[in-house]
Amino acid sequence: MNTVTALPELRAARRSLSGTVGFVPTMGYLHTGHISLVQAAMAECDHVVASIFVNPTQFGPNEDLAKYPRDLPRDLAMLEAAGADLVWTPTVEIMYPSGFQTWVEVEGLTRPLEGEIRPGHFRGVTTIVAKLFNAVGPDKAYFGQKDAQQAAVIRRMTKDLDFPIEIVVCPTLREADGLAMSSRNTYLNPGERQAATVLFCALSAAKSAFDSGERGAEKLRALVRKTVSAEPLAKLQYVSCADYDTLEELETVRCKALLSLAVYVGKTRLIDNFVIG
Amino acid sequence: MNTVTALPELRAARRSLSGTVGFVPTMGYLHTGHISLVQAAMAECDHVVASIFVNPTQFGPNEDLAKYPRDLPRDLAMLEAAGADLVWTPTVEIMYPSGFQTWVEVEGLTRPLEGEIRPGHFRGVTTIVAKLFNAVGPDKAYFGQKDAQQAAVIRRMTKDLDFPIEIVVCPTLREADGLAMSSRNTYLNPGERQAATVLFCALSAAKSAFDSGERGAEKLRALVRKTVSAEPLAKLQYVSCADYDTLEELETVRCKALLSLAVYVGKTRLIDNFVIG
Repeated sequence: MNTVTALPELRAARRSLSGTVGFVPTMGYLHTGHISLVQAAMAECDHVVASIFVNPTQFGPNEDLAKYPRDLPRDLAMLEAAGADLVWTPTVEIMYPSGFQTWVEVEGLTRPLEGEIRPGHFRGVTTIVAKLFNAVGPDKAYFGQKDAQQAAVIRRMTKDLDFPIEIVVCPTLREADGLAMSSRNTYLNPGERQAATVLFCALSAAKSAFDSGERGAEKLRALVRKTVSAEPLAKLQYVSCADYDTLEELETVRCKALLSLAVYVGKTRLIDNFVIG
Repeated sequence: MNTVTALPELRAARRSLSGTVGFVPTMGYLHTGHISLVQAAMAECDHVVASIFVNPTQFGPNEDLAKYPRDLPRDLAMLEAAGADLVWTPTVEIMYPSGFQTWVEVEGLTRPLEGEIRPGHFRGVTTIVAKLFNAVGPDKAYFGQKDAQQAAVIRRMTKDLDFPIEIVVCPTLREADGLAMSSRNTYLNPGERQAATVLFCALSAAKSAFDSGERGAEKLRALVRKTVSAEPLAKLQYVSCADYDTLEELETVRCKALLSLAVYVGKTRLIDNFVIG
C-alpha cells in the first residue's frame, strides 16, 4: 500500500493505477463501517484509493474539530489489511493554502436537518469532496448511508457538476446492540454508550409501526420522540420523516422515505436513520 | 470534426481521443479571438475540444441573454476550418436540468470590477466552467486575456478545487484600429463602432504614461477617464488599476498590474484591459 501526502505525489501514484479506481474518502479514526466501504470498492473496482483528512471547513466554530479522534498508524494498518492500494493523507495547508477562496455549495438539499443545525457544514463537505474528486479522479466513490443527507447532497453535487463519477451509498454498519458505527462513539462513557442505543430503538419502533401499516409521517416521528424521551441521558435534537430524494418533510409516506434523527447523548451528538418504503 | 449535444455522446467522443486534450469553452458567435485560442490549443495538445453554450446563469436579469448573437452553422464551419476535433453544443436543459442546485463560487476575486457591476455573473461563470471541465476532462483549457477578471477567477477556481487542468490565458486579439474583438461588437452601429476605439485609446494613453515612468495608479486612472470623457458616445462605468493577481486597487504600480475599464458605447457595454509592469 502506497501512502502519500503531497498533491503531486498523489497525482503520480494515481497515474500508475490502471483500470478502474474506487475511492473512499474518510476523516480517519476508521471503524468497520469505513472498511466495509473499502471492501465494496475492492469488489467493484480494479484499485482502491482512500483519503484521510479531518476537514476543518465542515466543522462549526463550536463543534468538535480539535478533539475529533485521530489515529493514523491504526488507520493505515486497517486500510492495508483491507487491501487499499493508495492512501492520501493531505494536510490542512495542502487542502486550504493561503489565498483559498472557492466554495462548492448545494442549495435546497442542504437547508433542512443537519444543514439547519450545522450552518456551513455541507458547504465544507461539498467543497472538500469536489477537491478530493478532482485530485483522485476515481470512477466510483463510496459513502455510508449513516450520513444520509451527506450522501444525498454528494449525489446531487456529482450530478449537477457533471463529475464523471458514480456515487455508491453503502448500508450503515451497526454494533451488536444496533448503535450505528461512528468515530464519534468514542466520545461516549459507558453509561452514555448504553443510552446511545436509543437512536436504533427509536428508529426500530417507527419502522415496526410502518411495517404494520402506519403511513402517517407525524405518527412515525411521534414514536421516535416518545422512545428517545424515555432515555434520561438522551436529548432529541430533531426527528424527520422526509422524502428520500428531496428531503422535504412528508405528511404521508407514499414512497421511499428517510426517517432520521439527531440526538445528544450527554455532550455527544449522534445521528442515525432508516430508509423506509 | 465531430459535433455532439448530449452529455453521454460527449463522454463517448472524449474517450475516443487519445493523448492530450486542449479545451476552448465559448459562448459561440466566434471571432478571430476565439480561433486564436483554438490555434494555441492545436499547437500544444494532441486534440482540441471546443464548446458552444450561451450560459444563462452568467447573465443578469437586465442583461443581453435574449439578444446575445448566435450563428451555430458559421461557428461550426470556423471551428472545423481551425482544426477542432470535437465540438460540444449542449442545450440549457442539458446543463441545468430540473432540480439543479449546485454552485461554484470564488469569493474575494469576484467582488470588484465586473463582479461589483454584475452580481452573480462570476458564480454563473465558475459553475458552468466547472461543469464543462468535468464533462470534457481536458489537460489544458484556453481563455482570452480580454476577459481578464474571468481569467483570474478561473485560474483561482482551478487551483482551489484541484482540477488537473492547466489554464492558458492568450493575448487579446484586436481589430486594425485597436478595438478588442468581442461577440458584443456586433451590437454597435457604425458611429458607435468608431467611438468604441476609445477604450483602446484610453488604455494606450495610460500605458504610454506608464512607459514614460508614471507609477501613480490614480494618475493612470485619470488619464483613462479623461480620454473616455472626450468621446460623446462613450460613458465610463469603471476604470481600475489593480494588482494582477489579487485585483486589489493599487496606489503605486510596483509590479504586474491590470489596467482595465468598462465603458458603455450607446447601449453596448464593452470591456478591455492592458497588463502593465
